[in-house]
Amino acid sequence: MKISRKLGEKSTLNRIYEGLRTVSPGRVKNSLRVGIGDDAPDDAALWRPRAGYETILTCDWFLEGTHFLANRHPPEAVGYKCLARAVSDIAAMGGEPRCYLLSLALPDARSDKWLHKFLNGLRKASRVLECPIAGGDTTRRDEILINLTVIGEAPRGRAILRNGAHTGDAIFVTGHLGEAQYGLHLLLEPLKRISPTDKRLRKHFYPKPRLAAGLWLANHGLATAMMDLSDGLSSDLLKLCEASGVGARIEEQRLPRVKIENKYSNKFDATELALHGGDDYELLFTVARKNVGRIPKTIAHVPLTRIGEITPEKRVVLVRKHGVATDLENKGWDPFR
Amino acid sequence: MKISRKLGEKSTLNRIYEGLRTVSPGRVKNSLRVGIGDDAPDDAALWRPRAGYETILTCDWFLEGTHFLANRHPPEAVGYKCLARAVSDIAAMGGEPRCYLLSLALPDARSDKWLHKFLNGLRKASRVLECPIAGGDTTRRDEILINLTVIGEAPRGRAILRNGAHTGDAIFVTGHLGEAQYGLHLLLEPLKRISPTDKRLRKHFYPKPRLAAGLWLANHGLATAMMDLSDGLSSDLLKLCEASGVGARIEEQRLPRVKIENKYSNKFDATELALHGGDDYELLFTVARKNVGRIPKTIAHVPLTRIGEITPEKRVVLVRKHGVATDLENKGWDPFR
Repeated sequence: MKISRKLGEKSTLNRIYEGLRTVSPGRVKNSLRVGIGDDAPDDAALWRPRAGYETILTCDWFLEGTHFLANRHPPEAVGYKCLARAVSDIAAMGGEPRCYLLSLALPDARSDKWLHKFLNGLRKASRVLECPIAGGDTTRRDEILINLTVIGEAPRGRAILRNGAHTGDAIFVTGHLGEAQYGLHLLLEPLKRISPTDKRLRKHFYPKPRLAAGLWLANHGLATAMMDLSDGLSSDLLKLCEASGVGARIEEQRLPRVKIENKYSNKFDATELALHGGDDYELLFTVARKNVGRIPKTIAHVPLTRIGEITPEKRVVLVRKHGVATDLENKGWDPFR
Repeated sequence: MKISRKLGEKSTLNRIYEGLRTVSPGRVKNSLRVGIGDDAPDDAALWRPRAGYETILTCDWFLEGTHFLANRHPPEAVGYKCLARAVSDIAAMGGEPRCYLLSLALPDARSDKWLHKFLNGLRKASRVLECPIAGGDTTRRDEILINLTVIGEAPRGRAILRNGAHTGDAIFVTGHLGEAQYGLHLLLEPLKRISPTDKRLRKHFYPKPRLAAGLWLANHGLATAMMDLSDGLSSDLLKLCEASGVGARIEEQRLPRVKIENKYSNKFDATELALHGGDDYELLFTVARKNVGRIPKTIAHVPLTRIGEITPEKRVVLVRKHGVATDLENKGWDPFR
């Protein structure tokens, strides 16, 4: 047959790749030798790792109905967030993202306007995070399925893991906790329809992986353990403690909590949101006591807040404002619960 | 709360990882610095690339209902095949697989016996292909969703792409074509139930990525272009030609076709299966005319067969046994058609 005949798969793929490859590839351009698009039609990408660096590999599901709702989450936000949250796993190691692979399954009804907007959001994240597309796989499906693989790098031996916390270490977080969950609650309010451009939705729709803070901590060798807060502090701090074989005590009054408007103060509790709210993509990290003074107040305008300390007993304790200490219940997000 | 409390996600994850990490990591052991399991609880993996090599990145959907049928495909075969077909993209560049990431979404009803058998199959592929697990993501879902990312390596500048074919190059394939499709047809026969251990299903269930042949061709610098046959020769040869800006002429009588049993000879046409059958995961490659004599008859017991040549006209022509040449219709697999 004639080569010029349009293939279904190829034309869909081409639209996707054309929609994504205009990203300014930034400093990684030269390391991505074979990427995607008409001039790179291979099934796999070729990527040139930097000498003296280790490769960080992470992948993330982002599924309609499980991780987002197609009738509530704008396609731009779905595109932006699917990459941003995967890149957060790179930030959590103190690394830098280099490129990503997009696996996308779409219903026919989503392959026009929805896809266009989704690609806009994804392209924006790709530009902001300096993480160009390297490849992917697409297929047709009755629901929107997304899987992102992100490739990052950290200098050899510098990546920060979650298993290095020691008794006496101070516990820090970046940013404010519970903001994304607050936005999600407002989004799902049955009575009022919130505008998708409402400021209070920004963190839920367009999370900011804390790359600058993670990188600074890795470069200065100051964090003994680190991870990102994706499922909620009560769930994620527990994971860090389990990995490190330690416990923790955190203080309610130190928590950098989401600001709740007065009219919602009866409905939402800022402490509950800060403790159990998911999707913030802030960093949780520990610092040896002797180094606490070297931690700045902010990195790239993001506040760093000391919220407690690592303890030898294998439990996570919350000290309430009035001084009473209780075991912190794990109420973060868990897809299997 | 007490650290010892079992988390839903964690226990499911642990089962998966325990089920996979016993793989003999072979020569890649030292390059996977942080992998998966209790002693490596991070969300991302750390992998150490080899000096002088480029990294090959590829990902693949493998979805219930689209790529396999849960009531026809044994879970062992699903596990084996999801990795083998993704590794085939590494073979297609002449590279070697190093590690993989598994994204798995499962219904509750599949998280016991089905999962156990799936992991057995996946572990077997991982061992055979010397490709250990590095990480992944799991969630709950009402259908089985699988996405595999495979990381491979090839010496710098040695990877074989699909865009290098020139007019006059000879076209080769490995193995026999149409075997997987023949197996699929027998599997889907409505009247008879075929045993899952039937030899004729082997290639459809347990494909063999042609790593040895791909590596040999890359090491000897003999293939001008290469790709794997996943969607069928008529579809994939077209892609190779489009990528290279050339056309092709292949001869029916040279095709290494599947053997059809006599009792099915009225039902199935070996040439049709060889031309359009998907899932063979054989290699399709081109060789400059002057080098054709250097191509061995077999590599690692897999036959290499010359089936035609690259032409300047941008069309793919099939020369039938009786000498008549026709444009080859693209009837391979396309999820968007």
